[in-house]
Amino acid sequence: MPLREVIAALDARYDPALAESWDAVGLVCGDPDEPVGRVLFAVDPTTAVVDEVISTGTDLLVTHHPLLLTPVHGVPAEDPKGRLVHRLIRAGAGLFVAHTNADRAPGSGVNAALADLLGLAGAVPLEPAGDDPRAGLGRVGELRAPMPLSAFAAHVAALLPATVGGVRAAGDPGRVIRRVAVCGGSGGSLLPAAAAAGADVLLTSDLKHHPVSDAGEVAGPALCDVAHYASEWPWLPVAAEHLRGDLAGQVEVSVSRLRTDPWTWHAAG
Amino acid sequence: MPLREVIAALDARYDPALAESWDAVGLVCGDPDEPVGRVLFAVDPTTAVVDEVISTGTDLLVTHHPLLLTPVHGVPAEDPKGRLVHRLIRAGAGLFVAHTNADRAPGSGVNAALADLLGLAGAVPLEPAGDDPRAGLGRVGELRAPMPLSAFAAHVAALLPATVGGVRAAGDPGRVIRRVAVCGGSGGSLLPAAAAAGADVLLTSDLKHHPVSDAGEVAGPALCDVAHYASEWPWLPVAAEHLRGDLAGQVEVSVSRLRTDPWTWHAAG
Amino acid sequence: MPLREVIAALDARYDPALAESWDAVGLVCGDPDEPVGRVLFAVDPTTAVVDEVISTGTDLLVTHHPLLLTPVHGVPAEDPKGRLVHRLIRAGAGLFVAHTNADRAPGSGVNAALADLLGLAGAVPLEPAGDDPRAGLGRVGELRAPMPLSAFAAHVAALLPATVGGVRAAGDPGRVIRRVAVCGGSGGSLLPAAAAAGADVLLTSDLKHHPVSDAGEVAGPALCDVAHYASEWPWLPVAAEHLRGDLAGQVEVSVSRLRTDPWTWHAAG
Amino acid sequence: MPLREVIAALDARYDPALAESWDAVGLVCGDPDEPVGRVLFAVDPTTAVVDEVISTGTDLLVTHHPLLLTPVHGVPAEDPKGRLVHRLIRAGAGLFVAHTNADRAPGSGVNAALADLLGLAGAVPLEPAGDDPRAGLGRVGELRAPMPLSAFAAHVAALLPATVGGVRAAGDPGRVIRRVAVCGGSGGSLLPAAAAAGADVLLTSDLKHHPVSDAGEVAGPALCDVAHYASEWPWLPVAAEHLRGDLAGQVEVSVSRLRTDPWTWHAAG
Amino acid sequence: MPLREVIAALDARYDPALAESWDAVGLVCGDPDEPVGRVLFAVDPTTAVVDEVISTGTDLLVTHHPLLLTPVHGVPAEDPKGRLVHRLIRAGAGLFVAHTNADRAPGSGVNAALADLLGLAGAVPLEPAGDDPRAGLGRVGELRAPMPLSAFAAHVAALLPATVGGVRAAGDPGRVIRRVAVCGGSGGSLLPAAAAAGADVLLTSDLKHHPVSDAGEVAGPALCDVAHYASEWPWLPVAAEHLRGDLAGQVEVSVSRLRTDPWTWHAAG
Amino acid sequence: MPLREVIAALDARYDPALAESWDAVGLVCGDPDEPVGRVLFAVDPTTAVVDEVISTGTDLLVTHHPLLLTPVHGVPAEDPKGRLVHRLIRAGAGLFVAHTNADRAPGSGVNAALADLLGLAGAVPLEPAGDDPRAGLGRVGELRAPMPLSAFAAHVAALLPATVGGVRAAGDPGRVIRRVAVCGGSGGSLLPAAAAAGADVLLTSDLKHHPVSDAGEVAGPALCDVAHYASEWPWLPVAAEHLRGDLAGQVEVSVSRLRTDPWTWHAAG
Repeated sequence: MPLREVIAALDARYDPALAESWDAVGLVCGDPDEPVGRVLFAVDPTTAVVDEVISTGTDLLVTHHPLLLTPVHGVPAEDPKGRLVHRLIRAGAGLFVAHTNADRAPGSGVNAALADLLGLAGAVPLEPAGDDPRAGLGRVGELRAPMPLSAFAAHVAALLPATVGGVRAAGDPGRVIRRVAVCGGSGGSLLPAAAAAGADVLLTSDLKHHPVSDAGEVAGPALCDVAHYASEWPWLPVAAEHLRGDLAGQVEVSVSRLRTDPWTWHAAG
Repeated sequence: MPLREVIAALDARYDPALAESWDAVGLVCGDPDEPVGRVLFAVDPTTAVVDEVISTGTDLLVTHHPLLLTPVHGVPAEDPKGRLVHRLIRAGAGLFVAHTNADRAPGSGVNAALADLLGLAGAVPLEPAGDDPRAGLGRVGELRAPMPLSAFAAHVAALLPATVGGVRAAGDPGRVIRRVAVCGGSGGSLLPAAAAAGADVLLTSDLKHHPVSDAGEVAGPALCDVAHYASEWPWLPVAAEHLRGDLAGQVEVSVSRLRTDPWTWHAAG
Repeated sequence: MPLREVIAALDARYDPALAESWDAVGLVCGDPDEPVGRVLFAVDPTTAVVDEVISTGTDLLVTHHPLLLTPVHGVPAEDPKGRLVHRLIRAGAGLFVAHTNADRAPGSGVNAALADLLGLAGAVPLEPAGDDPRAGLGRVGELRAPMPLSAFAAHVAALLPATVGGVRAAGDPGRVIRRVAVCGGSGGSLLPAAAAAGADVLLTSDLKHHPVSDAGEVAGPALCDVAHYASEWPWLPVAAEHLRGDLAGQVEVSVSRLRTDPWTWHAAG
Repeated sequence: MPLREVIAALDARYDPALAESWDAVGLVCGDPDEPVGRVLFAVDPTTAVVDEVISTGTDLLVTHHPLLLTPVHGVPAEDPKGRLVHRLIRAGAGLFVAHTNADRAPGSGVNAALADLLGLAGAVPLEPAGDDPRAGLGRVGELRAPMPLSAFAAHVAALLPATVGGVRAAGDPGRVIRRVAVCGGSGGSLLPAAAAAGADVLLTSDLKHHPVSDAGEVAGPALCDVAHYASEWPWLPVAAEHLRGDLAGQVEVSVSRLRTDPWTWHAAG
Repeated sequence: MPLREVIAALDARYDPALAESWDAVGLVCGDPDEPVGRVLFAVDPTTAVVDEVISTGTDLLVTHHPLLLTPVHGVPAEDPKGRLVHRLIRAGAGLFVAHTNADRAPGSGVNAALADLLGLAGAVPLEPAGDDPRAGLGRVGELRAPMPLSAFAAHVAALLPATVGGVRAAGDPGRVIRRVAVCGGSGGSLLPAAAAAGADVLLTSDLKHHPVSDAGEVAGPALCDVAHYASEWPWLPVAAEHLRGDLAGQVEVSVSRLRTDPWTWHAAG
Repeated sequence: MPLREVIAALDARYDPALAESWDAVGLVCGDPDEPVGRVLFAVDPTTAVVDEVISTGTDLLVTHHPLLLTPVHGVPAEDPKGRLVHRLIRAGAGLFVAHTNADRAPGSGVNAALADLLGLAGAVPLEPAGDDPRAGLGRVGELRAPMPLSAFAAHVAALLPATVGGVRAAGDPGRVIRRVAVCGGSGGSLLPAAAAAGADVLLTSDLKHHPVSDAGEVAGPALCDVAHYASEWPWLPVAAEHLRGDLAGQVEVSVSRLRTDPWTWHAAG
């Protein structure tokens, strides 16, 4: 099947029109006229992932994060990102990015997958986008059973892929959590939306000291911070499953076994 | 002793001219003509810290973080920060901020205190500022004895105040660490300076996924992430000790016993 | 009655949504939960007015001009405006500002009060704002009886509060004035709107040489310049009267007896 | 004498390099190759002044204020300023502007002339400009004899050309004035410089309510406001006298008898 | 007939509201109350054209290009454009500009005239503007008979006024041209619109190397470059004819015989 | 020889520090560690030039014009420029750009080569750059023998590579040309510098109607316009010769035989 048709299937699920204006989605390298037999999904286009692409004979790597979010005037091999472009092109492998369009996608996107994994009932977008009311950034829904914040943190740690940093929470550990807002990736800016939606907690990643400290001074959701990678990983098997179906089994689709969370060690404080 | 004289002693240590142009340092509330008998140091001007100010009869609270970094058109008590201003003014207590000027101060600043606590020999600023070569952001120096990155993380965890999140490291856990760059607070932007200085690791806080992931793709320092609060706390006893001496013992100076790190819970991943 | 309810009554008359985007209206200091027994209206929050607030046991000062139009990072008492905040907070008095929302308010605002004092019939806004056609900046209406510009100046001087600078007019002193445009405060930018509305004169304040000189070179309204303070003062008794009624007499409401026009002396040219 | 040589004499006194970057000085219309026998000085290029130019057979009008400070795409006669250009060109008369370069000129400029008229001893610029220490905006010097602010206002009124608005002062009328800062035209922005220079009063024009009100809240100079026209008129006879000398009497040079202050009437408040 | 009525007739054909926001159209000099007996049309208001205006006793010059596109603070005769203003005003001649409003005019504008001259059938705007579907920039229509690009270049050279530079084409000389896009003046930015309209060639002027080189790398229209002057000249006789009719023959209307293309010599490469 | 060493030789001749801040010079694709046996120079990286690279087994293409002046988020093969990157990378060929650094290079740059080809004596930069007085944009020098502008155009046409558009001149064809300013590429903005340098003509490319028309209205240089490609081509053999020598003959260096001027046809006007 030509790459062109695989791209069409991905664009149908993750409409590029849903991407943020500053984003860089779509094909980074590869030729739409060349055939694709094997597709691999990963969160990040790192060197280790490209090694896997090449060693497995993958024809198309689909990642959530852009390789070239900052635009470039060239892809020389002396630059680490340019080197990956050289390796992919020479191996005949394409790279395709579904980033904020995958975050906002209505049915099988990053935030929908995260909400599903946590078992949130009645989940709807925190920040709707586009015409479809099911599309947008973040999700907010109800836990099947209320639990204290401390238990919620353990629940999250058990469901998401393991990372050395684990799960941190801010707020009264005994606070009862019923309504949960989530945002895969760096979602701290959705705190006002989570508060407006009546969430008891906002689960996201890359939270910094000042907004968390300020949140502690007002009524509003507790906060739960996980590895950026862990918050987005749940999308990979979902997206792979959908693509497999969309292409009627003509292409082999798998999920990378690599953990691309960059943190490698933890020492208790 | 009038507040005016305490401020003069603080300004002499933490020259306001060293502050970043966007920063908000100096007196937030309080009357320079009123007397000060008791000074309390803390990292953050939170509600709990103001409770401590009032319950201990403190006349001047000195914090590292500004209360009003975003400027305001008023301080109404319905706003959490305005409420703190009301409580401090009614209690006759002033609030003084030493932020990026304390970060950059040559001898007794935030970064110098952090480097000293870690026992770095020959520490110099990562990003010099002003005329004094000892002034500037960050520090880089040598550990007394080399150790693997994994041991370095444990070493840091043992020396800094305990936090629920502990210490995370990115890089090969077995990499030998000799030369250490540090930056109290959010110092990820100093990574190029740390690399240029030949550091084996950069210790700072508030690191986000993308720069850490990119750092893993190039040669350069490993990364070590601690709580923002923990990275700046070492300054408090140093600054208190200096002020006590500068005021010749006429004013009682202490350090808050409160942990203002907003994270309250951790679940292993 | 709690301050919260007084604020609600003021917001109902002077909808904050009518304020310019650059403006700073609402509560500057004070606690919405504390009780209010006495309210004082003034044009400017000056030291003399705050003296009056404190000596009269006023609980809420309502001014037209913002205290902190330029936002601040603190309210230290060494700054004159910070000193007023300290004095008000320690005296338990709040400060509330109704500025461009009061200018534009439909029925009992600054411009409506000025037009009423001058006896303008059929007055409508010069620059409509919001959904209510009676709301907006400036007013234009008809004098009960036409009079020459020179007599109009004397008429204005007799009706507005006395100021040392008096009233100046530009244009042929004998020109007959029928249709009058007014704008409380600095309203020179409304000259095109006044011309379009067929006004014979625009009465406002803070007019500078160049626009007045240019206006003399074209057909269009004559100009009449009064003290900024004088042009806005007429609102005070009107607003006080309305608030008294809105609060059903439960709160004592008065108008400051102080003249806050800063000009203190005049010598004839 | 060709216009070119008259311009050279004016440029030598009022160096165009001293003008502000936003200003519009130099020749507005006229041909440098045509002869000039008669020069007229005025503050403003109004219709009445152009009438005088034409009725007196003047060849060159020199004004302080630019005709076209806002640049234009044409000078059609339906526009009042374009009409003046048509009348001047058809009458064979040029228009030359010396504005902020005349304000800042060292020896015979607008501010120097104003300081001289008030009899200020040891006057130096408030805001130096260029290489010559005598050049710059504003002047500050000592009165021959101290006097109260009220008497100072009367003194000013007696020395400057009469205007309907007269002279206003802000501050304690009894304050003793010794050191006087002046700035012809709209000079309110020089208040900090006047304060730094230890002035007891700043005399200028076009002062608006807010800065004058704020000035009343701090220690610092009193303020004195005169007509913009009156503050700049003193330059006209000085400049005419200098030009007459510079051209060795070959050209007839005079000062317009017209008052171009646009205010025509005053009613006491 | 007063100039005012001639302007009204021109504005009716070339609605100023159709001009670009950065443009400078309308009357540059002249008095709407003065009589007009003779009107001359030209592309550029150059010295040679003004010589013709004066020698022929023309009362109104109408040009396509603005004299003062960059706005000015004066029109001194030492500046070449100011000198033309002096000469026109002294000769009693006005200058009127119809630029991008003439480009976009529906029936008798610059682009319509160019399309008509080339015999394009069914021509419609490339970039519609305003409410009238016939108004807008550029035109695209069908040649009466297809011809190779090389023959099209010769066809254009034969129909447009002769210029030393002649006509250049980029693309396969044998490519068959059926559908032609045109844009008088500098129209390279319309290439995407021409491609979207299915044009085989875009004829315009002032094309630079890089966009032409890039166009050669993709499918899309060939390019044809003529002198800027030549591309706009066809409007002159059309506009003159229309104005003659609109003014019912009361005013003598003619087209300048001058070639204002600035290129004077050509050497074959 | 590794590509790294070829790049070092090019950077030594064409210091990247001389490039404009907006430019995109250096390696676009290729691996500095791979060997280079054959280098090809061309003005533009077009498809035809890449065909030549591949058919001749070239390892490094050096062009004057950047492939990716507008930065990109990817190089997918469906984009014409991305397709060239794919073809080059798969063929093992690098692409290196020397653009404004080559324009400004002191001894063997684009402008120096153009001046040499025209035989200009005593040529110096029109707009010096960097520390070396021989470096900078454009050149100005003396013809060996004066000649009329018409003959100069023929002289230029004879020396530069042939192009369909030939050479155009603006100005009096009989004007005697002695002193010649040149600027390879789009150099119209250097006209003031050429005038200040006393040039009789400025030779450059991509000149548009308005600046050429304006130039005809003032004293100053005549203008001569050639194909952008033709003005930069003279650099190719010079740069090839230098690189051959710098690499001591270890690498085969040649100049593309392709004409990359995009114009393909000319019809006399």
